[in-house]
Order: sequence, then C-alpha cells, then structure tokens
Amino acid sequence: MKKMTIIERLAALRALMKKEGLSAYIVPGTDPHASEYMAPHWAEMSWITGFLGETGTAVITTDRALLWTDSRYYLQAEAELQGTTVELMRESDVDCPSITDWLIRAPRTVATCRDGIPCRLSREPITIGVNPEMYSVNGYRKLREELEDGGLSLRSLDLIGPIWTEGRPEIPMNKLLPYDEQYAGESVAQKLQRVREALAERRADACVIAELDEIGWLLNVRGTDVDYTPCVIAYVVVEKAACNLFIDHRKLDDAARAYLSKIGVTIHEYGDVFAYLRTIASEGVLYDGNRVNEALYEAINPAVTRRVNATPSPVQVMMSVKNATEIAGEREAMKVDGVALTRFFRWLETEALRTPQTEITLAEKLTDFRSQGKNYTDDSFCTIAGWKGNGAIVHYHATPDNCARIEGDGVLLLDSGGQYLDGTTDITRTVWIGSEQPIPEAVKRDYTLVLKGHIALAQVRFPKGTRGNQLDVLAHQYMWHEGITYGHGTGHGVGHYMGCHEGPANIRTDNNTNPIREGNVFSDEPGIYRTGEYGIRIENLVVTIPATGLSSRTTGEQYYEFETITLCYYDTRLIEMSMLTEQERAWLNAYHQKVYNEVAPRLNAEEAAWLKEKCKAI
Amino acid sequence: MKKMTIIERLAALRALMKKEGLSAYIVPGTDPHASEYMAPHWAEMSWITGFLGETGTAVITTDRALLWTDSRYYLQAEAELQGTTVELMRESDVDCPSITDWLIRAPRTVATCRDGIPCRLSREPITIGVNPEMYSVNGYRKLREELEDGGLSLRSLDLIGPIWTEGRPEIPMNKLLPYDEQYAGESVAQKLQRVREALAERRADACVIAELDEIGWLLNVRGTDVDYTPCVIAYVVVEKAACNLFIDHRKLDDAARAYLSKIGVTIHEYGDVFAYLRTIASEGVLYDGNRVNEALYEAINPAVTRRVNATPSPVQVMMSVKNATEIAGEREAMKVDGVALTRFFRWLETEALRTPQTEITLAEKLTDFRSQGKNYTDDSFCTIAGWKGNGAIVHYHATPDNCARIEGDGVLLLDSGGQYLDGTTDITRTVWIGSEQPIPEAVKRDYTLVLKGHIALAQVRFPKGTRGNQLDVLAHQYMWHEGITYGHGTGHGVGHYMGCHEGPANIRTDNNTNPIREGNVFSDEPGIYRTGEYGIRIENLVVTIPATGLSSRTTGEQYYEFETITLCYYDTRLIEMSMLTEQERAWLNAYHQKVYNEVAPRLNAEEAAWLKEKCKAI
Repeated sequence: MKKMTIIERLAALRALMKKEGLSAYIVPGTDPHASEYMAPHWAEMSWITGFLGETGTAVITTDRALLWTDSRYYLQAEAELQGTTVELMRESDVDCPSITDWLIRAPRTVATCRDGIPCRLSREPITIGVNPEMYSVNGYRKLREELEDGGLSLRSLDLIGPIWTEGRPEIPMNKLLPYDEQYAGESVAQKLQRVREALAERRADACVIAELDEIGWLLNVRGTDVDYTPCVIAYVVVEKAACNLFIDHRKLDDAARAYLSKIGVTIHEYGDVFAYLRTIASEGVLYDGNRVNEALYEAINPAVTRRVNATPSPVQVMMSVKNATEIAGEREAMKVDGVALTRFFRWLETEALRTPQTEITLAEKLTDFRSQGKNYTDDSFCTIAGWKGNGAIVHYHATPDNCARIEGDGVLLLDSGGQYLDGTTDITRTVWIGSEQPIPEAVKRDYTLVLKGHIALAQVRFPKGTRGNQLDVLAHQYMWHEGITYGHGTGHGVGHYMGCHEGPANIRTDNNTNPIREGNVFSDEPGIYRTGEYGIRIENLVVTIPATGLSSRTTGEQYYEFETITLCYYDTRLIEMSMLTEQERAWLNAYHQKVYNEVAPRLNAEEAAWLKEKCKAI
Repeated sequence: MKKMTIIERLAALRALMKKEGLSAYIVPGTDPHASEYMAPHWAEMSWITGFLGETGTAVITTDRALLWTDSRYYLQAEAELQGTTVELMRESDVDCPSITDWLIRAPRTVATCRDGIPCRLSREPITIGVNPEMYSVNGYRKLREELEDGGLSLRSLDLIGPIWTEGRPEIPMNKLLPYDEQYAGESVAQKLQRVREALAERRADACVIAELDEIGWLLNVRGTDVDYTPCVIAYVVVEKAACNLFIDHRKLDDAARAYLSKIGVTIHEYGDVFAYLRTIASEGVLYDGNRVNEALYEAINPAVTRRVNATPSPVQVMMSVKNATEIAGEREAMKVDGVALTRFFRWLETEALRTPQTEITLAEKLTDFRSQGKNYTDDSFCTIAGWKGNGAIVHYHATPDNCARIEGDGVLLLDSGGQYLDGTTDITRTVWIGSEQPIPEAVKRDYTLVLKGHIALAQVRFPKGTRGNQLDVLAHQYMWHEGITYGHGTGHGVGHYMGCHEGPANIRTDNNTNPIREGNVFSDEPGIYRTGEYGIRIENLVVTIPATGLSSRTTGEQYYEFETITLCYYDTRLIEMSMLTEQERAWLNAYHQKVYNEVAPRLNAEEAAWLKEKCKAI
C-alpha cells in the first residue's frame, strides 16, 4: 500500500472528526510516559503534519491545520510543512495566540456552523478532541479549564490510532535488563516498602506510575528503549500486596522473567493497564498529575474513594535522593569520565587540528574516548559542540550536513555526558582553540563572570528546607551586576544511570517549591551567550551532602553543602585573574589539585604530565 | 451594672451556642480590616478569655474553653487565664494539635451527643460557628475545607456582639485627615483611574477594599485610629462611576467633608457597607481574598456574575510602588530621622549613663529626639531596645515594670522607626555600650557576619521579575556558612507615611511569588541571636531603582538595584576587619561618607564633629 500523504492523513482525520462531531483535534508532540526522548511510535504530531522537530503541537480543524512550535524550529518547520497545507504558528512571537486562545477566538466554519451563523452564537456545543494518553492529568485539566472558560468542551478519544495503521513504528521492543543491586544500592523489596509507607501517609494504598525513570528506579531495571536514558517502556501499579508491571511480553527474556519473579512482580501485558485500573480494588490511588497520563486516570475504578494527586510522587522524591552506593558509583563514573575528557582535550590540543575537524567530528571523537571507559553504555544526551557563534545558540544541534569547521582562533563550548552502569555524567567546558594570540579581553571577562557564579554556587551552605530558587542568584549575581543573564536554568537534577534531567528539585529562578534534599545531584551551569560571537558555559555536577563540620546538634538544624563531583580542569587561559578573589582562586586551585589527584593515576605518564600542567595552581 | 466575669461571659456565649445548635465557637484575635494593630473594640478574643496578648485564638465548646497562643505568650497567658476555666494550648509545642485537628478529633459531649453516644457516630451535624467579619475570605475557606474534611461544618454568625454590650469600647472615633497631594504625589482621580483600568483587565468593574492602608493610599487620607499606622477606619467600594466610602460620620469634620466632596467620594455610614454590597449593580467584583473579610464577601449581591479573588489586589501593588514624590519625601524623612538618631546615639555615648537608664528610658529618649523632627507625627512601631540577652528575643517587648537596666558592658540592639508626613522610617542599629574593654571576639564575628550579609543584599542587581526569595540568600550566605540563621524575614515592604510592614513583595525564604517592582521600599535586616547573651541586627531601608548605568536598551531587559536610604552610621568597633573584603570596606566607607554629608548640615558643630568621627573611613 502506498504511503499516505500529509493531505490524505488530514482528510482521514477530518472524516473521523466529522463522524465524532468534533470541531478540532489537538495532536501534541508528547508520549504517554512524560518522556524527554520519545519513541517514534508516538510521533503522532510529526505523522499528521510532516514536521519532524522535537517540540510542537498540531491543531486540526474542519478546514485548517496548524502547527505551533518555537523559534528554534521555525526554519525547519517552514521547510517541512511545504505542500502539506499545515500552517506554521510561530509561538515565540509575542503576537502569536496560545492554542486555547486561538480555538476560542478563531472564527469557526463548516461543521460547527449552520446557515452562515457564527457557531459561538448557536447553541451547538463546540467540542475539541484529544488523545488522553498524550496529556498528563494536570495538563489535560488545564486545557479543559481554559477551553471551558471560553465555552468549548473537551473530549478524550484517539483518532490517530485508527488511521495511522500502515507504517506506524512499533513500540520499541528492546529487552528489560535487570539492574544489579551492587549499583542500585537498595533492594526492590526495601523500595516497595518505603513507597507503601509513603502511600499510607497520604491515605492511599495504591499508586500508578507511568514515567519510565521512576519504573526503572523502583524495580531496579533498565533498558534501551529510549535514546540516552537507559529505561524500558512499561507501566507499574503498586498495591498493598502486589506490584504489577505492564510490559510487552516480547521484551522479557528468561533472565528477566526469573528476575521479576524473584522480586515478586506480577507481569501483565502493556496495554492491559487500563483494564486493570478499571477494576482495581483500592481505597486510595495516588498518582503524579504531571507524569501520569489522563487515559490512566480516566481508567481508574470509579469505586476508588480517594484519588491523591501528588506532584511530585513519593517515587520521584525517593529516586532523587541518591543512596551511598549510588553516590559512590557516581564518583567512580566521574573518574572514568575525567579520563575520557582529559584524553579528548589533550587530543584536541595536540593532534586534532592536523586534519580538518568539525563540530560533529569532535563530538564523535569524544564519544569514542568515553566509550573506552569501564561501564560506559551510551552518551547521556546528544553532545553539543558549539564553535564560535554556534556556542551562543543554547539548544544548538549540529548535523553532519550543517555544522561548523573548526578553523582559526575561537571559543569552543562543549556540553556532553556519559551513561555508565554506575552513574550518569553531564559536563560543560568552554575552551580557547587556536594560536597563542592574546585572547580577547571581552571573552575573558565573560568567562570569569561565569566562573565566579559557578564557584559561588558550588561553595554555598544552606539549611534543610532551602529551595534551589533561593540559591540561583549566587550563580547569576556577578553577571547580573553587569546586566547580563542567560536563558536557561542554572541547575537540573541528574539521575543515577538514568535521566540526565530529573526532578523534583532544581536550581532555577522559577517558583519550584521542592526543597533540596541530601543526596540530590544537580548541575551547576551558568553561562553567557554572545549572539554570533561565542557561547560560554561552565558545568559541573554536585551532590548535596551534610555541611562539613556543622553538626545539626550544634547548629540546631541540618545544614547542607554541595560537593563537586565532576573531575575536569577549566581552561585557565580564559580567566581574567584580576576579577577573582583570593578565596575563588583558592577554591579553583584546590579543585584542580583534586582533579589531578583523582584522574592522573588512571592516565599514562604523558597524559598525566599534560593534565598536571592544566591543573597547575594559578 | 457589674462587669461580667470571664466565667459569666463564657456562660452567656454557651447559652447562645445552644440556641443556635453550635458545638463550638471560634474567636480569633483579628479584626475586620486585616490590621496589624487592632483597635480595642475588636478584642473579642481577649474579652472572652481574659488573655490580653496580641496573638491567640479562642475555641469555646459546650464544656471547654481553650486558647491557642505561641511561646512568646505562654507566661502571660498562664497568669491571665488563672481562674477563668480557659485552658492554654501551647501552639509552639510540637505535639500541640491545630485548632481544626483538635475540633475534628476531640471527644464531644453534651449538646451534640445524646444518650452517651459519641456524636461522630450519630447523624447529627456538628457545626462550628465564627464571626465572618473576623476572617479573611481565604482564611475562612481554608478553615471550612479543613473542618469539612473532618466531617464538621462551618457557620457564619456573630455571637460575641449580642453579649458584649456593656463596656465594649467604641470603634475609634478619630478624625479623617486629608493627606496633601504635595506628599502623596498623585491625585485621587488619577489613582482611581488606574484602579479602574486594572479592574477592567481582570474583567471586573468594582472592588471592595477593607484594608486600611489601601484605603488611606487610594483616597489620600490618613488618620489616628490605629497605633503606629496613620490610618482611618473605613471600607471602600470602587465602582465604574462612583467611589464609596463607608465611615462613621462622626469622624468627618467640615474640612474632611469638603475634601471628600471635592474628590468625588460618596459618603455612607460605616455599617452600611453590607447592605450596599447586597444590591451592588456590578458584573464583576474584585476582592483580595487575604484582606477582605468573609462577611463582606457573603454580602455581595448574588446577581454579580464574576467574583475575582486577587491576591494581591491591584491597589496593594500600586501602593507598594512609590512614586517620585513619595521617594523624595522618604529621603527627606531619612535625613530628619538621621539627625534624631545621631543626637540619640551621641547622648547615649556621652551623657545617658550618668544617670540610671533602662531599655524603656532609652526608647523614650529616642522618641523624644524623633519628635523634635519636622513632620514627625508618631513612631512607626513600638521601639525594641534589647539589652544583652533581651536583644536575642526577636519579638522582645520591654515594659516599665519588666525591663533591663543598662549596666556594665554589653550589646544593645535598637530597632525603631518614625512616622513623618513625608515618609516612614524603620532602622535597627546594634551598638556596644560600656568601657573600652576589648569587645569579645565572638560578638565581633557575629556582627561582621550580619554586616556582610546586609551589605551583600544592599549591593545586588537583578532583572525585572526577580522575587525577594531569590535574593534572600545574599543576606544569609555568610552566616549559613557557619551554621547560623535567624528566625525572621530578611526584608519587609515599608509604606509611605503608612504601615511599617506592607506587601505584596518581601525578601524572605518563603514562597512569595510577587516580583520586586521599581519603587518598592524594603528593609534589609539580617540578624544573629545568641540566647541569653545578645542579639545583633542591622537594618536599613532600601528603595528599588533602575540599575545605575545599565540601560534596558543595551541589556535587553530592565535591571534594578537597591539604593540604601537610611542614614545612620554603624558601630565600627563591632567589626572584625579581617572578615571584610576590600569591596565591602569600600561600600561601608562610601555609605558613611554619605551619612555624614547628608546629616551633618542639619547638626550643630559639636554634633557634626561627633558624627564625623563615627563616619571616619575604616
């Protein structure tokens, strides 16, 4: 059968919409598991519009088709929407209406209007359809409220499934991999017990889990279904006396079955989660309204008397608090990562530029070096190598067809990370490439403003209960003083051999109310971006530990500090020394000493000597 | 007629409760205007319990009477509740149940139970009564929700009014005082226009105002009804074409009537606000759910289709943004205040201790000096003079019968402020009193940790949209590093010849989502408190201004900074110099230079010479 064109797909959708009496159908670029990286199976937005970018939402009405996406994707969308009849809505533009505003205000024609009378004056209900699997419960509620405020109603139904029958990629069928307790540091039995206690505290006796990182953490399993994040596609329903895993049976080999049986998990087919919830015999079901999809919520047995919306879920909070084994693993992974980074930067300085290099070849070489490390399984995200002006594009993504050649003098921003069985890394270094020409003062000033903020955050101590938004200013303070800021967060949570971005706490300027907890791992990554010129970002990971020498017995409360666990030198040529305080210089020298001490024993003599030079006191 | 005893009052209340079928009646220590300082007329909690402290809530059931109050008032409450049958609930104790928890869980007897069957098992409804005038709309909703979660219901009715007939103080009958536009800087017509525009943006065409500061600001009126805050007791209802003032007519002299007539305000009797709201012909009524009382809300005409709960109200936000005239007035008031402070501290150092002094006599002398200043009308709050260990009690309140004598060497904490027609001041200085013995190192270390935080906050620059909870860490950072913190906010908003504490923004560790706006005035007052030894707090007021030399044209967004407007030297003997950075020292020297330059011209030669010595560079 011939592949349908976008126009044919839209026609098929409109036929179903007409049958169902819908005025519009919304297709978001999301999946049922609140994933950061989505499997192609769920790319409904791309299928119906032809737009292949990662972020976008399609709205199909009886006579129009529109795609909302942000400025990063304008050019790509313009090209890919050619000839599809899909119109681009540039949502980063100030005058672009939101989807709900557009739906409420747009003049409606055809199906919802009769005799030329505008439908908003008629009594006919205007109904918008969505696939409830693609919306979080909270996202769905917000959408419904906004639509209802405008007199529209929302209906849950999947109209893409019935028409996307040919050529739809299967859900990834990779194996479930048991994750050794030697890395996880806690048994599944113990985790389940803690979860059940947390449920009881919230007067619930069951919970639904859809987010794949949480499932991997809870059951000590991993997988390769998702790019960069080692997780496996499934749902979990924890009850008082049972733990149910909903997963495609083809993903389970004998070892996996034996493991699941040993830890007492009951196996169900992936799609049976809805039927299971319909008859669940619990009194209280807890769900994370930001991470559990609306279809699951709608399936919950109406006889359940309590539905507890917990954002974040107890599982997410527990997962974010790394245990001693996980932290020890992170430290080990950092040493392995430090070796790879040292070899890469040495290669970059001494060999690379003898042959032509591009942003892509550098990224590939870094992955090569990492992949030689013990326990390496994958990168933790797609490396960002930004040469000169490309470094100033915060979400820059080079492709082999469209990337810069490394030529002349300039600033290289390199943001990368590895997945190791014992930990996840994420590091950004900004280095100067080129001749020994003087580095421009402006570059050094910017680099030093970033470094000062990075160091200030790394050194803070704070009492229990403090949130990341209280600490963010430490990273921003010096550049704010000069009227400079950056358009991304200062720090995100990082998983343990899991997602490179995890919640619930973070270090941003936002209103996140989650406190920083002991064992939380964060990035510390301020930056300065000069459009068309260069980008500077400096990023380490830190782990939250009790403040050294401050016992809660003497202070009356628990104080925490961050321990920097990333092990890689900074390019000190970029530092404007006169801008550093004695104290900052001492911090940097102590850090470089530690980098050398921890990484050098794993290097050969030449490599160690090279690193020693990079780490020498300033 | 003989004055009723507490026991007689409780009996009278219980008789009414029985008639109304109530199981309990709650009497909070609040008033209908969300006031910080309450008129005696509204002291219902004190009247029914005998407890005269400022903070407390009484709960009267059919057979028990309880008073919840915090640890500051335990001793006072124990004494005052003697012989009243009222039991003290120590709410600062960890095992003390909340009022709603207690009501939900307490075994109930008599009226709500029959034949010895516990009422929770019966079908009989358990109803709790409150006077809705004493609850904010949001406070009432929270109470109702908590009670309903426990199966209890809440009813609005005033049972104290009918029984507190003898000896109840009248509502203060002081005059309404027009406030000259030369101080206010904006006409009432202009303010009303801005408010109506803000209402329209929220799709409202009317608003109810109960908070007295907001009324004073909006109508450019002041009064003397409330301690320390120059406001007048009234309600206001703004509509599209009318502005209605509800006020006791005895408070209006001819000049006030002429003024109100000139600005187009319609005058109604104070108590008629409820009847007025019952028939209000608006489509949308905006109210601040934290500041408008439940009785007002319940009175709003049911035909009003939109009720907009705005926290903060547009009026509160506008009031917090000081205009150029107000800021100029503040600066002038600070000079006058600086003269009084200089004279006081000089007197303290050179003359005071020739005769016996107490915390009270010092506070009185300071008020004397202030009252000689131009445009002084009152203190802005009750001066806190805390000698040695008393300084460590954050809410210390000395009384003539119970205050410390200033003897020997020690630390004096002095927190005070003045109300001037052109501005409100609030300043804390901590000084060393006594011989020239070396000041203990621990005191100097603590003082310098506080000073460093105070200076860091004073120097910050930040982009538009930043909240105070993002900046708070700057004041905390140095002491947090040593495991020290303080149990109060870092900064509160300050009114203009109005409340010394005002919202909506502040500088605290809390979750306040209000951004800092240009023209906001805050205190900057970190502290360290050593129980039984001493308290250290350093407080200046700052005004939010555009960051000097950073135009939004070049930075892409608006940056702000704080300008310190308080003018009083710090006691440099308390500084541990080795802990200050060069930069902090430079800030302090520049500040001292400014203090001298602005204050000295208003002093006589001896005073100026004395201040010059205090302000000399360190």
